[in-house]
Amino acid sequence: MPLTPSHARYAPVPFTRVTIDDVFWSPRMAVNRNVTVPMQYRQLKSTGRLDALKLEWKPGQEPVPHIFWESDIAKWIEAASYSLASHPDPNLTGMVDEAIGLLEHAQQPDGYLNVFYTLVEPTKRWSNLRDNHELYCAGHLIEAAVAHSKATGSDRLLNVMCRYADYIGTVFGRESGKKRGYCGHPEIELALIKLARHTGESRYMELATYFVSERGAKPYYFDEEACERGERPEAYWAGTYDYCQASVPVRELSRVTGHAVRAMYLYTAMADLACQHGDADLLAACERLWQHLCLANMYITGGIGPSRHNEGFTADYDLPNETAYAETCAPIGLVYWNSRLLHLDLDGKYADIVERALYNGIISGVSLGGDKFFYENPLASSGAHHRKEWFVCACCPPNLARIVASIGDYVYSESPAGIAVNLYVAGKAEAKVGDGTSVELIQETRYPWDGAIRLSVSPEQVSKFDLRLRIPGWCHKYSIAVNGVGVDHATEKGYALISRTWTKGDVVTLTLDMPVEAIAANPHVVADLGRVAIQRGPIVYCLEDVDNPQGVRKVLLTPEGAFETYYDADLLGGVVVVEGNGLVYDDADWAKDLYRPLKTAQPKPVRLRAVPYSTWDNRESGGMVVWVPVMGG
Amino acid sequence: MPLTPSHARYAPVPFTRVTIDDVFWSPRMAVNRNVTVPMQYRQLKSTGRLDALKLEWKPGQEPVPHIFWESDIAKWIEAASYSLASHPDPNLTGMVDEAIGLLEHAQQPDGYLNVFYTLVEPTKRWSNLRDNHELYCAGHLIEAAVAHSKATGSDRLLNVMCRYADYIGTVFGRESGKKRGYCGHPEIELALIKLARHTGESRYMELATYFVSERGAKPYYFDEEACERGERPEAYWAGTYDYCQASVPVRELSRVTGHAVRAMYLYTAMADLACQHGDADLLAACERLWQHLCLANMYITGGIGPSRHNEGFTADYDLPNETAYAETCAPIGLVYWNSRLLHLDLDGKYADIVERALYNGIISGVSLGGDKFFYENPLASSGAHHRKEWFVCACCPPNLARIVASIGDYVYSESPAGIAVNLYVAGKAEAKVGDGTSVELIQETRYPWDGAIRLSVSPEQVSKFDLRLRIPGWCHKYSIAVNGVGVDHATEKGYALISRTWTKGDVVTLTLDMPVEAIAANPHVVADLGRVAIQRGPIVYCLEDVDNPQGVRKVLLTPEGAFETYYDADLLGGVVVVEGNGLVYDDADWAKDLYRPLKTAQPKPVRLRAVPYSTWDNRESGGMVVWVPVMGG
Repeated sequence: MPLTPSHARYAPVPFTRVTIDDVFWSPRMAVNRNVTVPMQYRQLKSTGRLDALKLEWKPGQEPVPHIFWESDIAKWIEAASYSLASHPDPNLTGMVDEAIGLLEHAQQPDGYLNVFYTLVEPTKRWSNLRDNHELYCAGHLIEAAVAHSKATGSDRLLNVMCRYADYIGTVFGRESGKKRGYCGHPEIELALIKLARHTGESRYMELATYFVSERGAKPYYFDEEACERGERPEAYWAGTYDYCQASVPVRELSRVTGHAVRAMYLYTAMADLACQHGDADLLAACERLWQHLCLANMYITGGIGPSRHNEGFTADYDLPNETAYAETCAPIGLVYWNSRLLHLDLDGKYADIVERALYNGIISGVSLGGDKFFYENPLASSGAHHRKEWFVCACCPPNLARIVASIGDYVYSESPAGIAVNLYVAGKAEAKVGDGTSVELIQETRYPWDGAIRLSVSPEQVSKFDLRLRIPGWCHKYSIAVNGVGVDHATEKGYALISRTWTKGDVVTLTLDMPVEAIAANPHVVADLGRVAIQRGPIVYCLEDVDNPQGVRKVLLTPEGAFETYYDADLLGGVVVVEGNGLVYDDADWAKDLYRPLKTAQPKPVRLRAVPYSTWDNRESGGMVVWVPVMGG
Repeated sequence: MPLTPSHARYAPVPFTRVTIDDVFWSPRMAVNRNVTVPMQYRQLKSTGRLDALKLEWKPGQEPVPHIFWESDIAKWIEAASYSLASHPDPNLTGMVDEAIGLLEHAQQPDGYLNVFYTLVEPTKRWSNLRDNHELYCAGHLIEAAVAHSKATGSDRLLNVMCRYADYIGTVFGRESGKKRGYCGHPEIELALIKLARHTGESRYMELATYFVSERGAKPYYFDEEACERGERPEAYWAGTYDYCQASVPVRELSRVTGHAVRAMYLYTAMADLACQHGDADLLAACERLWQHLCLANMYITGGIGPSRHNEGFTADYDLPNETAYAETCAPIGLVYWNSRLLHLDLDGKYADIVERALYNGIISGVSLGGDKFFYENPLASSGAHHRKEWFVCACCPPNLARIVASIGDYVYSESPAGIAVNLYVAGKAEAKVGDGTSVELIQETRYPWDGAIRLSVSPEQVSKFDLRLRIPGWCHKYSIAVNGVGVDHATEKGYALISRTWTKGDVVTLTLDMPVEAIAANPHVVADLGRVAIQRGPIVYCLEDVDNPQGVRKVLLTPEGAFETYYDADLLGGVVVVEGNGLVYDDADWAKDLYRPLKTAQPKPVRLRAVPYSTWDNRESGGMVVWVPVMGG
């Protein structure tokens, strides 16, 4: 298997070997399967995206097929395939087969597959890699093909996409006669790596390596193609190739810039290739970018990319709350990237980021009902920001669908040396250790509502191997016992390491202390200075007007000490509610003043109620805040 | 004198009878006279504004005369005239006479005077009152003419502008054959009122009354003229006539909307006419608008109009600090409006607004050197916002020049019943009481740096009259003595009332307690929740990085009790500095965290240094904040 990532210490246990039966994720996954995936099919139909593949469009007709419509279909096929892998469903299989049939139909004799450039601008194929999304769409279709093949065993879509990928390989590359281009929106790189690993065909890995390595080389390809279009390169609407991470070669990158989703998809491929080739320069670039992102440019929810202007990054510590863009797709990309980095050296700091994003800034993107979506995920709202059923640019909804359907991918890792538990998600799994010894894992927990985890570890035969249990970065105190007896253990990069001989039925209990905490942001974050966010375990909380009738945009929090929690099974699908002490000024007392001495305006005590940020805007609309000003303390 | 505002209790003592010799204002006025006014003449020359009046422009030439260039010239003539009234200067007289000669030259045979519509679009006169600024420019020229006539006794410019006003009177009005229009940017209304009062010609008062009363009437004139231009009225770029305060008749207005400067100039004329005609409906509208503005839409600096988008108002309590627009012209208009309202009933709440704006959000607009100007006056800065020498749209610089040159207008009021002191500004004045008895006033004070005021009251003959001393809204404790003996006195609408028989050389001492205070904003102001501003007397303070090397955007203030003040004659032209206790987080301690529990991150004490907001950005550039988060207390 030459295409196994040879430089990774661990590999993810794929979701196909993970069965989830979890208080937090199971309801989300059921809604995703039963509501989100079917309704997205209807959106693909009703908006004309699927029918466009019939190639019946004629000039003058509405709607005009759009340059990135295929990517929406692709992500939906990927989500549906993940769903089918665990929950066979003839209806859904029918929908997927219809879509694949249409893609087969739309493919051109040379393998090309893009409706816009086939019908609308047939003479302009590959003429604007910078702004348009041909290779990006190809990438998503390739991801869909791999997912579909893995889930169903059918190679119908895989064959289509291998033909397309082979054609792309004849167009792009460093060889004479080929275009030395790459896509303005990275995506095809990580997709080709998946295709290479799934098919065992090294040419796809080589093409991915080319796309990543060529990016940012001078003279800029984007300059050259702009000139060929008769445009001045300096008239680029985004101003700088930092927008698409193409101003310097990727090995020289050290600061996250530009469009956040593009950045994450590129960095994911960089991490994959670092892993594949043992490329220390790529890995070092990833580590620099990670530091820059996670220490100065990430919301507490895992949201990234504060600015609507470039859908991306601005200045360090510029993390405004009410105007946060934090596009849903961006933390999804953040999870992809960090899960790659995690497996290089099993450093828990990457899993901390995966957890932060999954439990907060990603699933905030979908309503509990599964039928409405946020594109933008602000951390404060006056009450006017709401989820919508679909978007003209509909990247986020199917991206949510595919990640929720494949949560199982992020729970466990395996290697010949042992097993790692990265996320605490109840259910069963099969991992492989040693030279293939199967180990059944049964995880019982009410995480993230409770820090108690019971893990049954049952190798098919008595075996010595490492069990690594992630101790989340938010956890300051924990205990571990094996078969009821506390164990001495080392900790390594955020994981407790239990190295012993395991026998069927061994039970590990891990108890993570999970107090409510008032979290401060780095003081350079101007928007959060003097404020705190409420967090318990991995869950970031928010205050909504519906729970706090005095209005959450005008309350203060008195920090520390007095938080109480309770599980409310009837609220928001079942959540732990946090209550704490706050202060509120009396509106009547202020009726005649816009400004007055602080000492004459004493706020009154009020009990505040906080719910998980991810569940906001699922009830009566109103104000919402994550960062609450602190008074006293 | 039928054109005296018959319904005002008091009249301002005009600046021509007020000599200022003040620690705060005299240096500002000297710089205005010696630097600002001459450099603005050079700007008017070098940018082509003055030369445009030669009417030599030909199509294709640059620069193209702009629709509101005359207004820049007009405000400069007004400022120069005020300066000449107190400080004769042959050079400046020459510059003013040159400008007036050019205006005479540019006037058309029918009285019309606007270079753009004379040369650039000669067929389109009066075709777009909504967006273009013909009547606005006429208004500023009229103000200039009145100022020049009063200051110099010359009627050269006055004659030009009476001809123009008379011509305008033939074009606009309710009579058959006239256009029932009014200007999108109010200004001519208040100007015509000044012209009427100065010339005694009631037709100008009638034309002003028409413009104010017709505004917002249906069918909308702006709709009709848009149709005549072949445009769809609903395609109006600003979306709604709220932008120009023309969606309802002015007597129905109750909420401040749209462009802030337009609003202030309109409200000033409304207050003038309420005063002139005893129009209770107009006065009631002014009072509603005042409440709405001053209780929910004004910065602590007196700045108004938070949004760059419409250069104006948004939603109640929407007062963001770093993005505050708060155009310099807007609080200048606020002073004009409130000084009119003040004289209706001598209610100190209006003088409080005049003082707040003059000492803070207006003079912040000009550098201490007098040669650079803010258009926007934010209340927080990362260090990138700086004053500039001039603007393409140059309304603010000459507006600053004219108000600084006429500060004397706002100090005293007079009536047959007595004298009111509205502002504490050292110098001499002559007021008139009874049936014309002259009273010499000598005010000695170091206000606003000190709350001690000594006022010598010397009537030319022994007289009984009221002396009203404003007790500022910020003052919670004060004492008054006459000739060294404490006096019992009534207070009325924010004024201490001393009613007695006065003899030459009587001395009143007023001591205003002037502690440093931490001021809170109404809790509905989301941007300021959990924060305070430092204020002492009328002066709003700010923190600048240059005084606080730890960085003012990351410090916290520990409220109350520990403020110290000292006068530093060498700093910023001489200011009282405020020092207080604050807290700052240690950068090194935070180097590895973007988020962490508040309790693990204790800030360290730091001494903070604050300077008057109006003086910010006069030294090394860096961060600035007015509203500082409060910790503890």
